[in-house]
Amino acid sequence: MNNLTSLNSIGEFGLIEEIKRAVSLKNPSTIVGIGDDAAVIEPGKKRIVVSTDMLVEGVHFDLTFCPLKHLGYKAVAVNVSDIAAMNATPTQITVSLAVGARYSVEAVKELYEGMQIACENYKVDLVGGDTTSSNSGLIISITAIGEADPETITLRSTAGENDLVCVTGDLGGAFLGLQVLEREKQAFLVNPDMQPELENKEYVVQRQLRPEARMDVIHELRELGVKPTSMIDISDGLASELMHICQQSGKGAVIFQDKLPADPQMLDTAEEFKIDPVTCILNGGEDYELLFTVKLSDYDKIKNHPDITIIGKITAKEEGLKLVTPSGNAFPLKAQGWQHFQE
Amino acid sequence: MNNLTSLNSIGEFGLIEEIKRAVSLKNPSTIVGIGDDAAVIEPGKKRIVVSTDMLVEGVHFDLTFCPLKHLGYKAVAVNVSDIAAMNATPTQITVSLAVGARYSVEAVKELYEGMQIACENYKVDLVGGDTTSSNSGLIISITAIGEADPETITLRSTAGENDLVCVTGDLGGAFLGLQVLEREKQAFLVNPDMQPELENKEYVVQRQLRPEARMDVIHELRELGVKPTSMIDISDGLASELMHICQQSGKGAVIFQDKLPADPQMLDTAEEFKIDPVTCILNGGEDYELLFTVKLSDYDKIKNHPDITIIGKITAKEEGLKLVTPSGNAFPLKAQGWQHFQE
Repeated sequence: MNNLTSLNSIGEFGLIEEIKRAVSLKNPSTIVGIGDDAAVIEPGKKRIVVSTDMLVEGVHFDLTFCPLKHLGYKAVAVNVSDIAAMNATPTQITVSLAVGARYSVEAVKELYEGMQIACENYKVDLVGGDTTSSNSGLIISITAIGEADPETITLRSTAGENDLVCVTGDLGGAFLGLQVLEREKQAFLVNPDMQPELENKEYVVQRQLRPEARMDVIHELRELGVKPTSMIDISDGLASELMHICQQSGKGAVIFQDKLPADPQMLDTAEEFKIDPVTCILNGGEDYELLFTVKLSDYDKIKNHPDITIIGKITAKEEGLKLVTPSGNAFPLKAQGWQHFQE
Repeated sequence: MNNLTSLNSIGEFGLIEEIKRAVSLKNPSTIVGIGDDAAVIEPGKKRIVVSTDMLVEGVHFDLTFCPLKHLGYKAVAVNVSDIAAMNATPTQITVSLAVGARYSVEAVKELYEGMQIACENYKVDLVGGDTTSSNSGLIISITAIGEADPETITLRSTAGENDLVCVTGDLGGAFLGLQVLEREKQAFLVNPDMQPELENKEYVVQRQLRPEARMDVIHELRELGVKPTSMIDISDGLASELMHICQQSGKGAVIFQDKLPADPQMLDTAEEFKIDPVTCILNGGEDYELLFTVKLSDYDKIKNHPDITIIGKITAKEEGLKLVTPSGNAFPLKAQGWQHFQE
């Protein structure tokens, strides 16, 4: 490890130069990128959407099992996911980093490499940021900017009664991936010679380490001529996100347990860990799939889409939030989400 | 201290609700603020400028002597300063916070109170953000958004030969304010009963704790019909910022020591601490004044402005960066800036 470059040997300006060199701008709306007091964007006739997310070492990620390149990718993906949830197209990001002195230049570059792969995938320009030192761990704060026609922007507050409740992909995997990684970490701490046992766990681990923002579905819905009536991305868990849509729209909802989309590996892993898979799906979080509602009249357009599952419908506010079990019983849905401030 | 509310008692959603309640939106360009996946902005025919800054406890601030309300104000002001340096008008900010569990809800609200006073002063809407826990200190990451007509945006890279080099306000105060606060902290650690000696230090301490972005000068330059040919805000120190303008414009510059604007209290404090006041001015940093260049033909318009000092002129690249002493000797200007990564 002796040929790693220390951050203080190149300094903040040196690091900015390294980052600048590696970045290329692609969006026509990006007028000025890294290197001035601020980036400059030309929105034309579009509206701008802005979202921001912070990832903190020891809270949101554990570098013992999270490769820096994946972490960089994920940090961008979770921000792009918020832009997707507005039914907008991501165009620019700014990245602020606080890095402990123990990090090498090579480590920071690996992190940026992951971010850049994500920038290329999502066609986003990295236009600015801030780099500073930290007394403890790594902190990544990203702000994502996107654009959309005023009439296509989709809020959380506009779900209508009898609208269909839909989700993309499958749920619960990211949470179980984290359980697998935590287990392997504990095993490693007991015996550092052990090899991680990740066979038949590839999918759930990947869901945790390298989630994708569902920009693909956003583009496909446009092609299908479907404008969701409300939308949110699933970062905290399905139950919690559905609660947000219902609260902000002043509605209730009913969802059906046997419709909830699950991957077989997620189900196997839940059984192995003796965790109820329905709890993983409802409260697991970090899947970064989209939860959205569409008008009943759009049913035919989406019913055969392989990545969209209709899980229920929007009801009147008085009905509350309900989960119907396969046996037909209806239970009130509890939204837990993450309690970040619990010790 | 027993009636303080712990963060985990109200949770992340509770905290967001508290913040949302206190925020009011003022800018016509803000369509959607806090509470959805992203904020929505209507830029009309303007260009958008975006800047971001991160403040880390123990690196950028010390809560032993920095009141949370001032810190909140400063966190917004330093971001607005970057928007000012683009000759743009700030319109929105997003705020991401990582907070240790030891912080109370009241402490976080005090921080936000300071941010809101700044938002009111600078006419900026707080439109979103992220709140999360931190294993150690407090981290504040703010992204500021502003708007400007395409033709008024001022970059660092467009200074011309023979342009006048100007600065706003006076320099070196914030650095000496920090020295005073550090001295009082050490005295307090030795004897916790002592009262801080801040007499005749009010100005420099205020420069450190509660800097202002020079939006006033930005508006006045517009009224005077002066468009700077290049501009940057002074966060790292005059020498370092002038180097950025010269490097990015492919020019040199000469500045005159006896023109550098200094406050009498700054000079007194420098003497007391036996620090060369010129070093404080050149390399002190954190004054958040503006460094800009104007065409020679604008001289008459700015020569009597009480908050603008002409300190030199832009030269050919080959001339390099020079400081001329009162005795007429020219020395190469060394830009140090802050080395954030030094331990």
